[in-house]
Amino acid sequence: MITASNDKQSYPIPVASAPVTAPDAVPRPRLPKELVKSTLFLLKRLGDAVRERAVPEFLAAGCNPYHHAVLALLAEGARDTQAEIADALRFDRSHLVGLLDDLEADGFVSRERDPHDRRRHVVKITRAGKQALVQRRAVMKRIENEFLAPLDAESRKQLHELLLKLASYHDVRYGGS
Amino acid sequence: MITASNDKQSYPIPVASAPVTAPDAVPRPRLPKELVKSTLFLLKRLGDAVRERAVPEFLAAGCNPYHHAVLALLAEGARDTQAEIADALRFDRSHLVGLLDDLEADGFVSRERDPHDRRRHVVKITRAGKQALVQRRAVMKRIENEFLAPLDAESRKQLHELLLKLASYHDVRYGGS
Repeated sequence: MITASNDKQSYPIPVASAPVTAPDAVPRPRLPKELVKSTLFLLKRLGDAVRERAVPEFLAAGCNPYHHAVLALLAEGARDTQAEIADALRFDRSHLVGLLDDLEADGFVSRERDPHDRRRHVVKITRAGKQALVQRRAVMKRIENEFLAPLDAESRKQLHELLLKLASYHDVRYGGS
Repeated sequence: MITASNDKQSYPIPVASAPVTAPDAVPRPRLPKELVKSTLFLLKRLGDAVRERAVPEFLAAGCNPYHHAVLALLAEGARDTQAEIADALRFDRSHLVGLLDDLEADGFVSRERDPHDRRRHVVKITRAGKQALVQRRAVMKRIENEFLAPLDAESRKQLHELLLKLASYHDVRYGGS
């Protein structure tokens, strides 16, 4: 990102027209063709792009992706233990405790001790949590649409199916065999 | 996820044969369907999977992905400055200096001061560097084949084209418009 600017400079003699180095004269940095041909390289870099671009946008809209994942999981059914939630999302268990504290403070989840086993906490999403989830889904959809902008509906469907096949192969939690 | 199970029940009449707790009786942790439907979620998780699985395999075979990227770039032409390499690969410039030190110590690259501009280092790949690259390409190919195992040749081609379209849209270094 090279930008020509006269800001914060003072010139004893007026500066005339053409810049010494035209922006076009700077060769664009290009990745090695060999890496661009590697599907694993593209996957890794696009994963980074999601982390670097989409996640901050989601955060800027007041949505924490970790909170979103927990709410999405609980919306599909209450969980008997915190460990169950951590394992499904593959979150560190102590990290999850903090997330549940946040969500409980916002009134989005409730934790109740199991009367039959005092060590267990049944975790449920509240009505306010469900409302928050609806609003977050809309934000997520918008960000997803922006990120996938160069692909038409058919290409998006194709991409999703291919990624899901690959993800299911590497991780049973996606519901693969 | 409803699973039929006899666990934690007692029968007045002895139940024969079947083990009390079959491994199948333990419900598998599943990700929320809502997240699995998100292409961005899959991209991020697969990017992580490449980092967590493919990269360590590559390292175990004695190949550092950072070194590989530098060698691949130089194999497509010498670079006039270290900054040019750092920008093309989007590596931190001080990190790159260390990588070039490693590669020079192995005899894979040479750095020569530009006689016309002593601040510049022309960086070239050596013959030994080219040989190392050939060997690393084979390792990379094997790991890529393993990771993409569930996809046939046509699916792999499709996936690559879709990812490349997306990557080019988000980053000009892929050669997109």
